[in-house]
Amino acid sequence: MSKSLADCLFCKIIKREIPSNKLIETEHSYAFLDIFPLSKGHSLVVPKYHTEFLHQLPDENLADLLPVAKKVAVAVTAATEETQYNILQNNGPRAHQVVKHVHFHVIPKQEDGSGLIIEWPSSKASNQELEDLAKKIIEKL
Amino acid sequence: MSKSLADCLFCKIIKREIPSNKLIETEHSYAFLDIFPLSKGHSLVVPKYHTEFLHQLPDENLADLLPVAKKVAVAVTAATEETQYNILQNNGPRAHQVVKHVHFHVIPKQEDGSGLIIEWPSSKASNQELEDLAKKIIEKL
Repeated sequence: MSKSLADCLFCKIIKREIPSNKLIETEHSYAFLDIFPLSKGHSLVVPKYHTEFLHQLPDENLADLLPVAKKVAVAVTAATEETQYNILQNNGPRAHQVVKHVHFHVIPKQEDGSGLIIEWPSSKASNQELEDLAKKIIEKL
Repeated sequence: MSKSLADCLFCKIIKREIPSNKLIETEHSYAFLDIFPLSKGHSLVVPKYHTEFLHQLPDENLADLLPVAKKVAVAVTAATEETQYNILQNNGPRAHQVVKHVHFHVIPKQEDGSGLIIEWPSSKASNQELEDLAKKIIEKL
């Protein structure tokens, strides 16, 4: 399925109304180089069906994204000789989403440290807390 | 397809050899609460087929992960009343991978700032640089 929005930057790229450095395209997905890379080879994998958030996308579009991201990761890591990378998808401005069209970042993590920089301030949750929360989530599934 | 490794923490969780707070399970995937959450509702979606990296996973396993992550995201955001979130998957120790079994994090980004903290030191790449790199990547596709 595809669906586009007239004012959306990524919809325009998919429709060739704005140029991009395309890497690969399938019936459901379109992959291209990010013009503001965090590291060499930073790519975007985008569904052709326009939604703002991941949880709004039809399953058939979701199912195509990771097989495409895998192809992109294999080719990008081969071309940049860097085998480590992050896959990131942000939902909402607080979660660092800028363009309001679902997109997966494929970001090589170079030996020089360039790439995605993450802080990981996690703490152990109590068993009781996790059990109660799991029940609450399962009710919504 | 499923495939497991005797010594792998996540394979043991999938086989119920180690307990977890399971949220949902399909033929190919298993989702549960992270016991070291970055924020309330931080969950993991894991393929039942053991590989260390995303680019090693068969497509049928890859295709199932995001539809499951979507269900988890909908339920987690409903249960925690937080609608913004990040999806993250790390490949390699430099890219913050700890457990050597592919896993997707679903991390709510709370209003209080808890969740994934990202730095984004991007810079504009030149058109020529992007064009040359795209050619090099496409050769590897």
